[in-house]
Amino acid sequence: MRISALAAEAGLPVATVKFYLREGLLHAGTATSATQATYDAGHLQRLRLVRALLGPVGLSVQQARSVLQLVDEPGDDLYSTLGRAVSALPPAAAPPGDESDPYPRARAALAALGQVYDPEFAAVAQLEAALAAAESAGMPISAERLAQYGRALTDVAEFDLARMPDEPRAAVVYTVLGTALYEPVMLALRRLAHQDAAVRRLRAAALPAPPVE
Amino acid sequence: MRISALAAEAGLPVATVKFYLREGLLHAGTATSATQATYDAGHLQRLRLVRALLGPVGLSVQQARSVLQLVDEPGDDLYSTLGRAVSALPPAAAPPGDESDPYPRARAALAALGQVYDPEFAAVAQLEAALAAAESAGMPISAERLAQYGRALTDVAEFDLARMPDEPRAAVVYTVLGTALYEPVMLALRRLAHQDAAVRRLRAAALPAPPVE
Repeated sequence: MRISALAAEAGLPVATVKFYLREGLLHAGTATSATQATYDAGHLQRLRLVRALLGPVGLSVQQARSVLQLVDEPGDDLYSTLGRAVSALPPAAAPPGDESDPYPRARAALAALGQVYDPEFAAVAQLEAALAAAESAGMPISAERLAQYGRALTDVAEFDLARMPDEPRAAVVYTVLGTALYEPVMLALRRLAHQDAAVRRLRAAALPAPPVE
Repeated sequence: MRISALAAEAGLPVATVKFYLREGLLHAGTATSATQATYDAGHLQRLRLVRALLGPVGLSVQQARSVLQLVDEPGDDLYSTLGRAVSALPPAAAPPGDESDPYPRARAALAALGQVYDPEFAAVAQLEAALAAAESAGMPISAERLAQYGRALTDVAEFDLARMPDEPRAAVVYTVLGTALYEPVMLALRRLAHQDAAVRRLRAAALPAPPVE
């Protein structure tokens, strides 16, 4: 298809598609003349990925380019590629405080959970920052709560991993989008599960039953 | 204690404490003369709450004031107060699209989970936006995934609710901080559980065992 058809199919202005081409986020079409090129379903799929990265995932053009590079060239060490791709997602991790033991809270928590981890992975610094914030607000995470949350999220992670495609490029896309796009789903579901539990505790029978589909 | 001691104890500049007093985020001390007042442990505790709301929780001064008003006057309908307090937390929900059925995806998901919900609660709009984003990126949440995530987060929510203090003001603080401050903990734990599961799947025995505490 021509660029105008590609843009229409993706629901984007032609200028946006041209911008993605110039920025190297979308691969060039097949030249059909000196001034025209043709695009296929692969381009459409890529556009959807680029839009997700720049939209709901919240990456800058430069950050999206780095992630797309990992999608395009996952290399031989898929584990390391997935780790780098997820580490490129928001939130940006703050630099470590004490160099000799930069993540003491995260280290203790992950040891308690018996989890293998790589401190280069940005989520370690994120966990440290989150645990420190809870602590300084006077609501530190108890050992019991850590065990409960850890168990629930291990179940989720096993489910997620079991559905990861084997093909490396598809695995990187699945990991990046499944991490970033499903996180807000999880947070909304937790808040709604709180509401559901609170109704039963605080206001039994005051709300109507859920609608039947 | 004097304001200087209060500020020192809280690790804040005196000017910041005075700003919180002027903005009505911190209640006045007990006047001991025309120009001096004395502050107690309640002020220190409140300062810690204000700092959490303006810092890691990410509220503006005006938003923090609304939340603190709910803490100070939880009223008779605690269920509704908790709902309003959580709805005041980020992320801000986008306005509904179709007025006659504003949250079709969230409605279907919550019906499938058998959960009671109130569409006034901002998390319904958040779930709708998150499900729509996943869908338009070509990664819609399957029924199987929804059931798995829903089960994990119901376990978490039951745990959280069971530990909510009975005293209404303490219940509002617990709910606000437990929602906002534990969310980044959960997301980091999911990413780290992915890493742990991926190590075993992709790189068995290539990383050292977790440190023993």
